[in-house]
Amino acid sequence: MATESKTEDAKPAIHYPKLGICLLVGLILWLTPAPQLPAGLALTEGADFAAGWKVFAVFAATILCFILRPINMGPAVLLALVILAATGTLGATGKESFQAAMAGYGNTTVWLVVGAFLIAGAMIRTGLGHRIALNCVSKFGKTTLGLGYATAAAEFILGPAIPSNTARGGGVMAPIVNSLSRTLGSTPESHPKRAGEYLMLNGSHLNLVTAAMFLTGMAANGLVVEMASKTGEGIEFGWMTWLKGSIVPGLASLLFLPWFLFKLLKPELHDTQAAQKEANQQLSKRGNWSIGEKIMLSVFVLMLVLWATGKVHGMHTGVVALIGVMILVLTGTEKWEDITGNKEAWDAMVWLGGMVCMAGLLKEYGFIEWFAETMKGEVYGMGALATGLTLALIYFYSMYGFSMLTGHITAMVAAFLALAISAEVPAMLMVALLAYFSNLCGCLTNYSSGPVVIYSGLGYVPVARWFKIGFLVSLFHLVVWLGVGLPYWKLLGWW
Amino acid sequence: MATESKTEDAKPAIHYPKLGICLLVGLILWLTPAPQLPAGLALTEGADFAAGWKVFAVFAATILCFILRPINMGPAVLLALVILAATGTLGATGKESFQAAMAGYGNTTVWLVVGAFLIAGAMIRTGLGHRIALNCVSKFGKTTLGLGYATAAAEFILGPAIPSNTARGGGVMAPIVNSLSRTLGSTPESHPKRAGEYLMLNGSHLNLVTAAMFLTGMAANGLVVEMASKTGEGIEFGWMTWLKGSIVPGLASLLFLPWFLFKLLKPELHDTQAAQKEANQQLSKRGNWSIGEKIMLSVFVLMLVLWATGKVHGMHTGVVALIGVMILVLTGTEKWEDITGNKEAWDAMVWLGGMVCMAGLLKEYGFIEWFAETMKGEVYGMGALATGLTLALIYFYSMYGFSMLTGHITAMVAAFLALAISAEVPAMLMVALLAYFSNLCGCLTNYSSGPVVIYSGLGYVPVARWFKIGFLVSLFHLVVWLGVGLPYWKLLGWW
Repeated sequence: MATESKTEDAKPAIHYPKLGICLLVGLILWLTPAPQLPAGLALTEGADFAAGWKVFAVFAATILCFILRPINMGPAVLLALVILAATGTLGATGKESFQAAMAGYGNTTVWLVVGAFLIAGAMIRTGLGHRIALNCVSKFGKTTLGLGYATAAAEFILGPAIPSNTARGGGVMAPIVNSLSRTLGSTPESHPKRAGEYLMLNGSHLNLVTAAMFLTGMAANGLVVEMASKTGEGIEFGWMTWLKGSIVPGLASLLFLPWFLFKLLKPELHDTQAAQKEANQQLSKRGNWSIGEKIMLSVFVLMLVLWATGKVHGMHTGVVALIGVMILVLTGTEKWEDITGNKEAWDAMVWLGGMVCMAGLLKEYGFIEWFAETMKGEVYGMGALATGLTLALIYFYSMYGFSMLTGHITAMVAAFLALAISAEVPAMLMVALLAYFSNLCGCLTNYSSGPVVIYSGLGYVPVARWFKIGFLVSLFHLVVWLGVGLPYWKLLGWW
Repeated sequence: MATESKTEDAKPAIHYPKLGICLLVGLILWLTPAPQLPAGLALTEGADFAAGWKVFAVFAATILCFILRPINMGPAVLLALVILAATGTLGATGKESFQAAMAGYGNTTVWLVVGAFLIAGAMIRTGLGHRIALNCVSKFGKTTLGLGYATAAAEFILGPAIPSNTARGGGVMAPIVNSLSRTLGSTPESHPKRAGEYLMLNGSHLNLVTAAMFLTGMAANGLVVEMASKTGEGIEFGWMTWLKGSIVPGLASLLFLPWFLFKLLKPELHDTQAAQKEANQQLSKRGNWSIGEKIMLSVFVLMLVLWATGKVHGMHTGVVALIGVMILVLTGTEKWEDITGNKEAWDAMVWLGGMVCMAGLLKEYGFIEWFAETMKGEVYGMGALATGLTLALIYFYSMYGFSMLTGHITAMVAAFLALAISAEVPAMLMVALLAYFSNLCGCLTNYSSGPVVIYSGLGYVPVARWFKIGFLVSLFHLVVWLGVGLPYWKLLGWW
């Protein structure tokens, strides 16, 4: 299990020239005087735009660090916070500045993600995730298309529980899909198009769909929620709201994407009973449900119920996740050592908490307002809906320029949201478009996200073909999420 | 390396009857109506005493959990926060309540301790801690008394860098002291009084002295600082202030305690050149300094300089610790994996952040004010200094009733501080007494803290003897820290 930061394993060493570039860019921006505020732009009272500009310098260097990857995300973010705190940028005293830099670690969304990572650890350790995936294959896996739907079903079930799409796709699903393909006599070396090519692309693209469907489907989704909450429009894009908006286009995607890819790729093999048999064998080898698996399943169901009934009991989704964690610990299903030793959870806490904090500061110090005001001329006069859709499309295809979903989200969402709102795009619509597109746009390249790297790294699909299919899938997503999504969100009153 | 929670290894399983008792006590307190506020006590505006009483119920159950230890500290504290958040005790909405429960994780003192734990990990991994200890023995270890002073020197040097006294005493010092004793032909089975008894008691009691001397000497010291900052007296008992108050009585302790114990225990052996030779051999086996050790030493020195010059550059001590961490990461001395995998750091973060939060809430909701007001009658009329000393002595010897330093601190410091201040005891004096006594009182039993358990667990000293010597050491501490400390603190203007 790892966060979305997929290059972690491949490049453990520090790349000093690239790190130097990031620091240099940050330094140049830092030393550049803050631009004049446009006449007529009144920032929130007390907003210190000069400090906001410095936060932007550090933020920009961090994003560049996400793109060039000289170091992991965690240390990059921590370094950014240390610089902001040490230079006294965020407060009158050293303590105030440090307090402001660390404030993100008390953030509720951050703890929702930490809680979900801790649940994910148990999901994998107890073996329940693996069993669910095998069961899906056993149920639907009689034909190649059936295997495609089995993957969709497994991804859909595991989506809400395993917040790292890398953990879900790369840790649980990809190994199963790969072994099934090999059972069917389709390997990268021999007959990849028999079944493997289809299964890999299907697995990879479905993973991004479930990442888009659930707030807890991908670690950085919480950033979108935080940025949405800071627009001043009073938007709470919580777990249920996120799902309410995604459920209809999301289910449509899960329903049609396996078929779409099947028609597109035309795998040679149709009868996959051998794979089904293999799954059944693995299941019987697993034997009866362990107590740990049963408790894990109960906790999972309880969490889903509590997440779905938030309006009744009023508990924050993060509290629900931590209730799940506490049940696992108090029943001995997870040891406390497993919790404190869950590196991925603490890694996610460090970078997400820091990014939430910086995103908040950019807003608080007026930088986002300034950006939106400055850019407003570019989008003015297009009409609200057209502006929103244009921004969403730019956002989607700008992913070609990024190496990872998280970097893309942190760099663009807050600014695009502010810009859209200043151009009177309905706020909920824009949040929804950015939220879902943040994950769907990962279809474009073979390096956008952890599971994509893993599936493509298995070697069944040449890179050029991955890009070509990826572009076609992007069109599929736009048709589904705009064709189905837009009318549906209209029904919900989101625009 | 582990936090002060020493029973962690011994009892990994959950003790359900004891857990039930803790929950039941909490529930009974929760359901008991909050007492009437005494006439004339006006709480801070907006303080909700009924909510404060519920926080107290959860807090009391947590402390009971620290004493009975059915589960580790981390899950106990997290459970407390989850209960407070889930019941909506801390805010009008579920989100507000959750935010308030998690606020401690953005606290500066908590991140100072996390940073110090991360430094400690590197100190041990690079081997620098071990080398420093061996060098002390090599320098001073010609006689038994010299070995005693070698331990004092090593503890003094490592004190500021290794915030867990268990890591410092149990992880670095105790194994070395034990192996020296065996080299001298003194084992628990054969001639324990030759040298071993003295070396063990000396090591254990010195460890508590250095824990008392540095804010970063013991993980829970940060709690005292936080509680002091919330008295409303504007007290910043930071890293340098802590050391300013402790340096004179602390050095006196380090100077006289080895001699005091030597006279008291009369070890049979005096010439310990064999041990010195052993240390030299181990040192030459270690060979030249590695680059990691050199960087670690530079970072350590840099941190000490920055901590000592806080007034000049204005950076918070926690920022300094994190600067150290970032240097270690960016030079590759520590891998990011070592940081996210530092279980002790995240364990400390979870429990310390939660306790800081609850302690703050007790204050904010008026519980501490109520307690101080209610108890004021008991101490009224004694005179300010007499009251302060009486409270300090009660605090010191009440450690007999606790199984761990952290539990003792969390249970008593905030209330005693408020009580003392309401009785007009000079606030700085009271903070100093409680801060230093919080660690020194660990001398009383053989189970008060991790390193004490480890040293006593080595088996050189029978329990009854440990208690007897411990009591005599407590008198030594009182003589030094009141005899030297009181006049010195008067000089500092603390009373």
